[in-house]
Amino acid sequence: MSYPQDRLCLTPVHLDWAGLRDAYRRVRSTTADLVAPLTPEDAQVQSMPDASPTKWHLAHTTWFFETFVLVPSAPGYNRFDDRFAYLFNSYYEAAGPRHDRKARGLVTRPGLDEIFAYRAHVDTAMMALLEQGGAHADEMARLIELGLHHEQQHQELILMDIKHAFAGNPIEPSYAPPIADNGASPRKQGRAVEWVSFAGGLKQIGHAGSAFAFDNEGPRHKVWLEPFQLADRLVTCGEYLEFMADGAYQRPDLWLSEGWATVQASQWRAPLYWREETSGWTTFTLCGRRLVDREEPVVHVSFYEADAFARWANARLPTEAEWETAAEALAVSSSGLRLHPRPASNEAGLRQMTGEVWAWTASAYLAYPGFAAASGAVGEYNGKFMSNQMVLRGSACVTPEGHARATYRNFFPPASRWAFSGLRLAR
Amino acid sequence: MSYPQDRLCLTPVHLDWAGLRDAYRRVRSTTADLVAPLTPEDAQVQSMPDASPTKWHLAHTTWFFETFVLVPSAPGYNRFDDRFAYLFNSYYEAAGPRHDRKARGLVTRPGLDEIFAYRAHVDTAMMALLEQGGAHADEMARLIELGLHHEQQHQELILMDIKHAFAGNPIEPSYAPPIADNGASPRKQGRAVEWVSFAGGLKQIGHAGSAFAFDNEGPRHKVWLEPFQLADRLVTCGEYLEFMADGAYQRPDLWLSEGWATVQASQWRAPLYWREETSGWTTFTLCGRRLVDREEPVVHVSFYEADAFARWANARLPTEAEWETAAEALAVSSSGLRLHPRPASNEAGLRQMTGEVWAWTASAYLAYPGFAAASGAVGEYNGKFMSNQMVLRGSACVTPEGHARATYRNFFPPASRWAFSGLRLAR
Amino acid sequence: MSYPQDRLCLTPVHLDWAGLRDAYRRVRSTTADLVAPLTPEDAQVQSMPDASPTKWHLAHTTWFFETFVLVPSAPGYNRFDDRFAYLFNSYYEAAGPRHDRKARGLVTRPGLDEIFAYRAHVDTAMMALLEQGGAHADEMARLIELGLHHEQQHQELILMDIKHAFAGNPIEPSYAPPIADNGASPRKQGRAVEWVSFAGGLKQIGHAGSAFAFDNEGPRHKVWLEPFQLADRLVTCGEYLEFMADGAYQRPDLWLSEGWATVQASQWRAPLYWREETSGWTTFTLCGRRLVDREEPVVHVSFYEADAFARWANARLPTEAEWETAAEALAVSSSGLRLHPRPASNEAGLRQMTGEVWAWTASAYLAYPGFAAASGAVGEYNGKFMSNQMVLRGSACVTPEGHARATYRNFFPPASRWAFSGLRLAR
Amino acid sequence: MSYPQDRLCLTPVHLDWAGLRDAYRRVRSTTADLVAPLTPEDAQVQSMPDASPTKWHLAHTTWFFETFVLVPSAPGYNRFDDRFAYLFNSYYEAAGPRHDRKARGLVTRPGLDEIFAYRAHVDTAMMALLEQGGAHADEMARLIELGLHHEQQHQELILMDIKHAFAGNPIEPSYAPPIADNGASPRKQGRAVEWVSFAGGLKQIGHAGSAFAFDNEGPRHKVWLEPFQLADRLVTCGEYLEFMADGAYQRPDLWLSEGWATVQASQWRAPLYWREETSGWTTFTLCGRRLVDREEPVVHVSFYEADAFARWANARLPTEAEWETAAEALAVSSSGLRLHPRPASNEAGLRQMTGEVWAWTASAYLAYPGFAAASGAVGEYNGKFMSNQMVLRGSACVTPEGHARATYRNFFPPASRWAFSGLRLAR
Repeated sequence: MSYPQDRLCLTPVHLDWAGLRDAYRRVRSTTADLVAPLTPEDAQVQSMPDASPTKWHLAHTTWFFETFVLVPSAPGYNRFDDRFAYLFNSYYEAAGPRHDRKARGLVTRPGLDEIFAYRAHVDTAMMALLEQGGAHADEMARLIELGLHHEQQHQELILMDIKHAFAGNPIEPSYAPPIADNGASPRKQGRAVEWVSFAGGLKQIGHAGSAFAFDNEGPRHKVWLEPFQLADRLVTCGEYLEFMADGAYQRPDLWLSEGWATVQASQWRAPLYWREETSGWTTFTLCGRRLVDREEPVVHVSFYEADAFARWANARLPTEAEWETAAEALAVSSSGLRLHPRPASNEAGLRQMTGEVWAWTASAYLAYPGFAAASGAVGEYNGKFMSNQMVLRGSACVTPEGHARATYRNFFPPASRWAFSGLRLAR
Repeated sequence: MSYPQDRLCLTPVHLDWAGLRDAYRRVRSTTADLVAPLTPEDAQVQSMPDASPTKWHLAHTTWFFETFVLVPSAPGYNRFDDRFAYLFNSYYEAAGPRHDRKARGLVTRPGLDEIFAYRAHVDTAMMALLEQGGAHADEMARLIELGLHHEQQHQELILMDIKHAFAGNPIEPSYAPPIADNGASPRKQGRAVEWVSFAGGLKQIGHAGSAFAFDNEGPRHKVWLEPFQLADRLVTCGEYLEFMADGAYQRPDLWLSEGWATVQASQWRAPLYWREETSGWTTFTLCGRRLVDREEPVVHVSFYEADAFARWANARLPTEAEWETAAEALAVSSSGLRLHPRPASNEAGLRQMTGEVWAWTASAYLAYPGFAAASGAVGEYNGKFMSNQMVLRGSACVTPEGHARATYRNFFPPASRWAFSGLRLAR
Repeated sequence: MSYPQDRLCLTPVHLDWAGLRDAYRRVRSTTADLVAPLTPEDAQVQSMPDASPTKWHLAHTTWFFETFVLVPSAPGYNRFDDRFAYLFNSYYEAAGPRHDRKARGLVTRPGLDEIFAYRAHVDTAMMALLEQGGAHADEMARLIELGLHHEQQHQELILMDIKHAFAGNPIEPSYAPPIADNGASPRKQGRAVEWVSFAGGLKQIGHAGSAFAFDNEGPRHKVWLEPFQLADRLVTCGEYLEFMADGAYQRPDLWLSEGWATVQASQWRAPLYWREETSGWTTFTLCGRRLVDREEPVVHVSFYEADAFARWANARLPTEAEWETAAEALAVSSSGLRLHPRPASNEAGLRQMTGEVWAWTASAYLAYPGFAAASGAVGEYNGKFMSNQMVLRGSACVTPEGHARATYRNFFPPASRWAFSGLRLAR
Repeated sequence: MSYPQDRLCLTPVHLDWAGLRDAYRRVRSTTADLVAPLTPEDAQVQSMPDASPTKWHLAHTTWFFETFVLVPSAPGYNRFDDRFAYLFNSYYEAAGPRHDRKARGLVTRPGLDEIFAYRAHVDTAMMALLEQGGAHADEMARLIELGLHHEQQHQELILMDIKHAFAGNPIEPSYAPPIADNGASPRKQGRAVEWVSFAGGLKQIGHAGSAFAFDNEGPRHKVWLEPFQLADRLVTCGEYLEFMADGAYQRPDLWLSEGWATVQASQWRAPLYWREETSGWTTFTLCGRRLVDREEPVVHVSFYEADAFARWANARLPTEAEWETAAEALAVSSSGLRLHPRPASNEAGLRQMTGEVWAWTASAYLAYPGFAAASGAVGEYNGKFMSNQMVLRGSACVTPEGHARATYRNFFPPASRWAFSGLRLAR
């Protein structure tokens, strides 16, 4: 199965040139900051076909600007290395042939230093272009803005992928030092969920207006919703431990048929990265392995596990329309790239809609009514992944600041667990 | 991947006892009639894990009545053979353990004769029960009605499965003699599609009322539809040949990502059962191999192929809500179990909605809002298959008379091709 | 991996015409007798790619005579059905293309009756030919003799394959009624092995002379043997149970590296067909399931298990040269096709060299020095299987009378267990 | 399938302490020299389960000395890092659990620098030990000598593995600069093979005496050989091209059955690393890609290809006894670790027996008569790999100086191609 690593589209431009320059500098340097703790060896490793080496992410996001901005729009631009087009294209058929995705880990050369030199070469040319503007400026600005959102997606993938790689090393290196305290204030322990009610009716969902969005977020369209309730917070590890204690992974009646087959074939008995030790269940985080905190939201569960949990809890997962309707009125939490989700606060009302873990929904990832793919290479694959994937909503602690919004549609295959994916109940 | 072979539920009873007796006799004898052309060897074979031996279908549908009707409701009933519960349970966990689905073809004993004796044993007890009524008559009647619809599903599966098995034999046996003429009257050749318009708005879909339906057809609920158009007929083999001639199976840009991966891994270059010979493309039918007829609807294509065709044709597949809205006003075509689909008639208006080939839709198979599984073993798995499957609507030439209705939801994985599946365009 | 089902060669003729006629009648009717207890469904089933349907064996052995004897040598002979050449060729490239081995179980037609009609058709023509002799009589007689030995190999395969198929049916049908008493006389229980000594030296092994042999048995050649000892009987189930009780299947130190990998991947914990029940270990035989008899030779073990047992027992497996040197002086036990091996008798000296279970040797199946394949189709594949297989020596209870001899080389892949394979220790 | 990466045994010591010190320094520094051209990323990569990262080789060979020499024999020695025992054990069950072989490429930390620090730490302790001798000096000396031969095996593996990894990178990095001239002097082009005759008779093969050898090389034992001939040189690329031009990879009659299945499943049509370009066939070498030189020995062929070539050439592969008998009288060519094999010289007589490419033999890798595994961890697996592998004899250009000898038995599975494996004909 080929899993998409990014999902691009062409959208209206929303930034003036100065804003675009600032954004370019900020996003590009954030990527470099994320990679700072990694060694050349770390940046080389591909731990499974769905993941990519850090080095590949660094180069691919750079290739995007080179291919779609500099080569067509920067007069006299010289490619850094002609072979990179083949090495660092992800799946853009229109941009030419490309290296086998599973074999990205074999590309030991160019090395990490050379990739940083590539980034510097492209950044120099990009900054020159951003200073001068030039022909087709609107089109170019739209592509640059798109490239920045694209790079933000890869920032999250860098953290997902390196976490997976480190977890595969018996000595389990840490990406960052341990977190001293993961919650802002003392919390009521094991506080029960409260349900927030929504009236339903004929609603509109999907992106509209002038702010940036990926094309799969539109067009905005009407949906009919029956009245529904959402849990005021995400499902916690404590609740998930109760589910496990009640035989979760031994009871076929709780699972979708394919979910149960996956449980057996993959011998799942807990979320990804969990391990039972004499001291209790532990989990591997980007800050090292530690005891599972019952108050934190459960993370790294598949859609199948989320669905089974909801069935066990006599509830269900929300649809994406329900989630978006509930989220529309809320401000997006600014996470600023934390490395692990936090417990819910003690406040009342709908919390943790963004910034902690992505929430699996009951919705398959399909085109909205009236959806049409953008033209050209960047729009080539917009709807390409609309089969056998489920939608996740919200955002995670590892999602870059400014990347989340109420209409954002993330998606993964139902058995996938290496994203920062959790769940919120509905009924 | 485990593919469901039937999908049951508990529903209100709709027949009086006399009607139920008649229905029982008619459905059970139809099954026997379908098997009449087969030898004991034919009835033994399982050509792939998704298919079952004819003998298994014969026994499993009988096991249903024995297990859910006779054992609980017929005083003094003696099981025909205690071991059959293990052999012929499909996937009802609550009904006990069961034989490995992939290994159904290894059950050479009981033989075909013994299975017919089993059917006669159960039929005798059932007819006695149907004469006398008895305690819990309503519940029992509902289960019997359900059992008959269940058996009708297996009638279609018998034909699908034996077609697949015969196609795997190099001498390609025929289930029935060749069809002399597959169309009622001379037809206009290659007549272009005409588009039928629908206004959209706030509609209701799903089953309601007293007639029989499976539980996944309800509850009836509101959906908002934008205005849309449906093609007045199914896509033909002639149109599909044009698609192939235009490079269908060589052009990644036409396919969903997983569809393209499937094309390459399975080396598809035409619908299932098609073969290119010097005389042109031929297809294997239950009446033997013959030249592809350009006027007939294309059949045995996967969702991926249907989706790619629609993209190529600058159209799309309808959603199941669109399809049902359009179908609601139409009478169901009574096919009476023909073995191959026919060309569209020359009449105007929406044709071939039922009775020729199932139409793939753009809708993933998911629960309707408010759906709840029935209780007890027969309801155990109602929603069990709601992942990684797409909905098909209508019915096929091999669907038994009385089995199709506007709200019926068929479903298969998107790469599946052995059902009688085709497509109709929307836009 | 493709496993050979037969191994043919062209050899000198050893029978006069009357003898050949008798042999033809006897071998052909033995095959029919073997199939008498089977139903058409039984004869249809292929339980794994390495096995074949009984019906296929019946037809393939007949096809041999039709293709290599009747078509070239019987003037005016009409093929029974031209399509059978494709269906029933095993792997003779020179005899034309052939049906996919794994899909033999899909050939429901021709049915069993038609295959018996095919046999009768060929038998009639063969008997006519055998009456009249004719041109190239010597060549023809050699091919007929070869065909009869070939058919005897398939007699054993019929029993191996149907046992495997029956064992895959949860109700475990019996091929024959239970054996009342498997041993001729009261035996000493658990009598220890005694060692028979051989002097070694420069020996000759391999076939020579005028009696029939397959070509892989020659040429006769010199080998140097150090002095060695052979156990006087086969390893028993009782000894194997001790090995199991000592952690056989949990101790990597006892196994070859690939053997251990196979144990883990296949989750072996006992010989094939064994099952632990509350009453103790049982085994499935052609006469039904019953308790393991500690005195009987262990059977249905792989080379890996035989090798591990020998290591555990501080012994080793004999080489094929050692085995043959020891066997040369002995008469071949005439088993007459029993269905299960018997305990060793109470006599002294080397026993059970033939007629009970094949004995795995330490020798890889390779060409003897000076080996050259015969020319033409029947010789095409003589040496074709000389990789990744180990030699077994002796014969089994299911080996037809007259088929075993001291130079006979049987061979199977080291992980294979469905042959009647056991072991004898050497040191 | 688990492929052995090294094959150890305990043998008599052959060096005085000074000699041992020199040897230790020389072998250890050769390993470091081999790695000098590699980056940290290069040293990280594992291109297939059979290969290992360079870094792993560096650490594993060091772990050997730490585990089997320093920990038991150097008083006060402190392990460099306790976790390394788990990470860098290959398959020594007695030395404790170990990291999954397939996942060696995930161990990004320790990094390459830390591994060199580990080597320095161990080298310091080893040199101290080698200065002072100490208790159990004989046993210790034997283990050190064994460790050095073990490290030499890994030197060859480092080159095999990095060649395989570089070949998987689309830009195909070179390990070393191109070779200007691969032959010492002008050669006769396409000179035909000449056959060297040997008388046969009762010979002895296998290791005896006081020089070092692995335990699988003994005991020395008698074999009977018929008279035979060996080609005077290895098979060349030119000859192999003729074989290919004659339909090698399209003709099932030339192949062993499993060989042909491998050809089809793996879509082989030339030796590993060959590619057909407009300029002709090229091959990837450690010095970069270049045109195939018709005079060079063919390399990177499997046993199946070697066997098919020999059949095509109306010859056969030699047995290992034949090869060893012929080699015994010859001096071992001192290759000194060249990176690519050279054409045969113009001299007469048996050439290229060592120092160019390993020669596949017709012999399965089995125990010699009387073989017994050494006791203890280092001897644990001596015979562990004696199934489904074929013997190769001689040595290759990448075999370290001093590592080859006439009795040396190399072995690989018959489908393996990444070793520097070629062939020499016999008849």
